[in-house]
Amino acid sequence: MLEELKKQVYGANMLLPKYGLVTFTWGNVSGIDREKQLFVIKPSGVEYDKLTADDMVIMDMEGNKVEGKYNPSSDTATHLELYKAFPKVGGIVHTHSSWATSWAQAGRGIPCYGTTHADYMYGEIPCVRCLTKEEIEGAYEKNTGLLIADYFMDKDYEAVPAVLCKNHGPFSWGKDANEAVHNAVVLEEVAKMAARCERINSEVAPAPAELQDKHYYRKHGANAYYGQK
Amino acid sequence: MLEELKKQVYGANMLLPKYGLVTFTWGNVSGIDREKQLFVIKPSGVEYDKLTADDMVIMDMEGNKVEGKYNPSSDTATHLELYKAFPKVGGIVHTHSSWATSWAQAGRGIPCYGTTHADYMYGEIPCVRCLTKEEIEGAYEKNTGLLIADYFMDKDYEAVPAVLCKNHGPFSWGKDANEAVHNAVVLEEVAKMAARCERINSEVAPAPAELQDKHYYRKHGANAYYGQK
Amino acid sequence: MLEELKKQVYGANMLLPKYGLVTFTWGNVSGIDREKQLFVIKPSGVEYDKLTADDMVIMDMEGNKVEGKYNPSSDTATHLELYKAFPKVGGIVHTHSSWATSWAQAGRGIPCYGTTHADYMYGEIPCVRCLTKEEIEGAYEKNTGLLIADYFMDKDYEAVPAVLCKNHGPFSWGKDANEAVHNAVVLEEVAKMAARCERINSEVAPAPAELQDKHYYRKHGANAYYGQK
Amino acid sequence: MLEELKKQVYGANMLLPKYGLVTFTWGNVSGIDREKQLFVIKPSGVEYDKLTADDMVIMDMEGNKVEGKYNPSSDTATHLELYKAFPKVGGIVHTHSSWATSWAQAGRGIPCYGTTHADYMYGEIPCVRCLTKEEIEGAYEKNTGLLIADYFMDKDYEAVPAVLCKNHGPFSWGKDANEAVHNAVVLEEVAKMAARCERINSEVAPAPAELQDKHYYRKHGANAYYGQK
Repeated sequence: MLEELKKQVYGANMLLPKYGLVTFTWGNVSGIDREKQLFVIKPSGVEYDKLTADDMVIMDMEGNKVEGKYNPSSDTATHLELYKAFPKVGGIVHTHSSWATSWAQAGRGIPCYGTTHADYMYGEIPCVRCLTKEEIEGAYEKNTGLLIADYFMDKDYEAVPAVLCKNHGPFSWGKDANEAVHNAVVLEEVAKMAARCERINSEVAPAPAELQDKHYYRKHGANAYYGQK
Repeated sequence: MLEELKKQVYGANMLLPKYGLVTFTWGNVSGIDREKQLFVIKPSGVEYDKLTADDMVIMDMEGNKVEGKYNPSSDTATHLELYKAFPKVGGIVHTHSSWATSWAQAGRGIPCYGTTHADYMYGEIPCVRCLTKEEIEGAYEKNTGLLIADYFMDKDYEAVPAVLCKNHGPFSWGKDANEAVHNAVVLEEVAKMAARCERINSEVAPAPAELQDKHYYRKHGANAYYGQK
Repeated sequence: MLEELKKQVYGANMLLPKYGLVTFTWGNVSGIDREKQLFVIKPSGVEYDKLTADDMVIMDMEGNKVEGKYNPSSDTATHLELYKAFPKVGGIVHTHSSWATSWAQAGRGIPCYGTTHADYMYGEIPCVRCLTKEEIEGAYEKNTGLLIADYFMDKDYEAVPAVLCKNHGPFSWGKDANEAVHNAVVLEEVAKMAARCERINSEVAPAPAELQDKHYYRKHGANAYYGQK
Repeated sequence: MLEELKKQVYGANMLLPKYGLVTFTWGNVSGIDREKQLFVIKPSGVEYDKLTADDMVIMDMEGNKVEGKYNPSSDTATHLELYKAFPKVGGIVHTHSSWATSWAQAGRGIPCYGTTHADYMYGEIPCVRCLTKEEIEGAYEKNTGLLIADYFMDKDYEAVPAVLCKNHGPFSWGKDANEAVHNAVVLEEVAKMAARCERINSEVAPAPAELQDKHYYRKHGANAYYGQK
């Protein structure tokens, strides 16, 4: 069942250690089949070098396990809420990657200081607030998803495919699991350069809007001319 | 004698270079057999790429060598005091890992800024004071262990399985040698992100208590639901 | 056509991942045949581990593609302007390497703090201004090249073979594609050490002029005595 | 001639890229035969992955080349002066390793903040002044050696086997070429942790003298008890 998607999600999970985004099991990737209304996610706490495509867990949109010998990632309820809120998203990633997590712990969004950021993310990468005591003690992972969804309700989640959760870490997404991982790598690189940039010039201001526009639309939308499309 | 434990402790020692926690021979792992009241520890100053399981040294709880062709780690007396003070600990690690040692040199405990920390360590990772002149000039390594034991006398050493020694470096522990190394890796990662986080936001405050509780108890205790347990 | 140059430019492009200067496809190298008035450049957005020498694109000095199955790098017009302005340059590199880009985002040139810098670059590595709204919305990549060319009009582009573009990233050049990459590596290393140096001493001043002279002329010009020349 | 020493010095040179202390050819190791009054040094500007033991250059104590097809390192005259001034030194290393060079560029000695430093270097690792205009324009490399020798005239060069040259980079030494490289690795690690430590606590003070004594003499001198000696 969903063999292709399980392979793809497995492969995308294995990119996390390849790109240095995870220590131990601190990350998970999922991918969704919108027609079947099922998504595939990494099992909870299984080490990457022991993981196989068959270990992937299939979940339905009510959060029930449909197939899989393992428990799904403990962050599954967050993924589920994001899939519900972001209908064009096909893959989601959560990591504790070092630089993005440092910004999340600092409780700050990442300003757009240059074209590396603007090529992929349109404007500041937001940091949503910490959950309240009630939200934490209730359905914590689900509430994390609801908070992110709420933040993006009046924003373009395709133009800003990543978010930081205060005191926690980043989530990113994309049209499929691979693009979601791609955006997680971009996020980490952008987080690193933004932190260093502020050390080099403590008065630094975000890049001008017209430069952000230029680079974003060089890669996205009808007039994109980057790459071989 | 203690062949299994020697293999396990050897394997745990070899994880230190694998995870980038040691330069040269600047680290050591031990593991204890509580029934036999013997512990196994790395020999002093032997290079990791020449180390074998047979090189491990067996010590008794009076600090006498019971077996082994080499001298035990120069930090053996510290390990011994920790085993005496922490009856549920099965493995201990000492390293000079770069970020944790930078905090130790700075003389500061590591505040809990986020869930990566809270998942493993409950609250601030403490930094104990530098030893006094008398303690240093006396039984230095033993006094290091006594100081740590004294600090934890009224605290939960299982909930905070690591400590920084001012002007020196970290010790960590766990139910066995492998878990102690696991905690050393976590400590290094947490130390790195906390330092960066403070640069990104110099006004940053620790994560709310309820979030620390949530994440710690997601992985520990009767209601844990992380992983496959 | 231009088989040798294509191989050389391909090889120089492959040095970018080798030296850790690129993430994904965020970089490009070109090389020019001055006699034939043609230059060879990496195709746009093609992944490094799939790249071959045959994928290189040949361009003429009017910016027309002469040979190649792919679109040339989206930065081709910048390369072209630099080749026109810098007649002794044989190769050009653009990357988003992490430290150099952090300086570019910070909008600061890199002061010469020591001999590592002085051995290769004579004086501060400049950071040119961000393009104006008109320049960005017009022929953006060409205008980037014109701005750099304009900055160096009354300066020695051979003595300072690199530049930072504000809010964007670095370009470097050399007598051929390999030397241009060599200078990109030097730039990244120098950018890293200058940033750290300012953290270690916030009052640091550039190295004395006579030391900069000594090291630069130890490696360059008629009286050079470094190496085997 | 001196085949054993050439092999040893070659091997020690190859440790520089292994330990990440050099970019390109920015480093050199030498070793001396005190009886024959000859020393062996890396050739100038030859890439590490093309280097062989046979490429090593033999020099006499007047700075004449005795054997070798290549020019010796451009820093040979500095090595020579250090061998003359430090009679118990058997090997010398110069690198532009990133953290040590950042301190050198910052013009600051590295305070002893902890036991990692104290285990190998007794007290602050000094940073000697920049050479004067006259010294630079004269016999620059020789004057670098004389300045270091002059600084250590009334100090113990065996207890502090490393120095930073302002605006330039580090030199280290030891009883042979391998120990000199060992000390270069220690220096880099200590430089990194001291810089980070000052960021974590801007009020940090050096480790107490008694702790520095304890650790230094745990590894050195008649009462040393670290390792298997």
